[in-house]
Amino acid sequence: MNKLIDSQLILASKSPRRKDLLKKIGLTFKVKSSKVYEDFNIKLLPADFVSHYAKMKAESVSKVNPNYYVIGADTIVVCNDKILGKPNDKNDSYRMLSSLSGQTHKVYTGVSIQHNNHKIDKTFYDVTDVSINTLTNNDICYYIDNYKLFDKAGSYGIQDFFAVHINKINGCFYNVMGLPLSSLYYHFSRIVK
Amino acid sequence: MNKLIDSQLILASKSPRRKDLLKKIGLTFKVKSSKVYEDFNIKLLPADFVSHYAKMKAESVSKVNPNYYVIGADTIVVCNDKILGKPNDKNDSYRMLSSLSGQTHKVYTGVSIQHNNHKIDKTFYDVTDVSINTLTNNDICYYIDNYKLFDKAGSYGIQDFFAVHINKINGCFYNVMGLPLSSLYYHFSRIVK
Repeated sequence: MNKLIDSQLILASKSPRRKDLLKKIGLTFKVKSSKVYEDFNIKLLPADFVSHYAKMKAESVSKVNPNYYVIGADTIVVCNDKILGKPNDKNDSYRMLSSLSGQTHKVYTGVSIQHNNHKIDKTFYDVTDVSINTLTNNDICYYIDNYKLFDKAGSYGIQDFFAVHINKINGCFYNVMGLPLSSLYYHFSRIVK
Repeated sequence: MNKLIDSQLILASKSPRRKDLLKKIGLTFKVKSSKVYEDFNIKLLPADFVSHYAKMKAESVSKVNPNYYVIGADTIVVCNDKILGKPNDKNDSYRMLSSLSGQTHKVYTGVSIQHNNHKIDKTFYDVTDVSINTLTNNDICYYIDNYKLFDKAGSYGIQDFFAVHINKINGCFYNVMGLPLSSLYYHFSRIVK
């Protein structure tokens, strides 16, 4: 564990949830977000999509910080074969939440750990099934009006009030929040050992 | 939602996690813990055990606060047909965590909503499967030495560092933390509507 704690680490993401999650497992790190543009028209399967962008984000920060471990991540929601990223506006949120109502969708998070000088390049992903109760019009409008969801894939946060609408999950909870802690710890501890 | 927020509510539990979870879903409430002694030698199935004690806790506080909604809850971990409550000491924690290593166990939380004057008495439970990675001796000792686990059934917190050892869950995440938010919201909103 000490080698993990002592590693020179950068989180290549401005997501406050990812920051909180890395802190939760005792790591110290700097935050430097990448400027990678995500093209949702790219023809990739969900697992390849999140792996591709996680790697791009980590690489872009790793190149200019070659002596740090850099963690990049990318999260998407997939419902009925459609990829949902972050909503553009309230109407977009309404459409996303309506499509998730009464359905089980999948949340994919890709993670990439890079270290330029040590030639480390490890990319993996995790997937979690999330089952949502049937949402009424009031449920959706109350949530959109009272919670911040424009920075969240699929327009919801499993860690906020929306929890009351989540019937069950199957997989890693923290993967839905944006970082699969168990698989991240597994890979990272094998890299720095 | 307003009727939920405006309800006169007491949480009959001193668990800081349960307090945080009720706050997360926007409820305001007082905390009054019950003085119910749990007998782990009682011959009840896990679902009946947590329902029985959740109800006893809620009832004991409801009797002296007859004009409040009172929520009581009880959480246990069941691994290989053995009920694990809170550990007595570090040796007990070591035994519990060793027994969970590499296994899938079940977490049961019973919840009881009581309102003496309105004759409301609703008790239910939820169950979540939790799969733990194989833990080394170092993993267990590091966790016992660095984290507070004496107030937690099964000797672990899914919301703290132990998250790195949890491979997956199947069910409600918040049920493992001590309150199944989705089923609580479902039942409570039908009671106060």
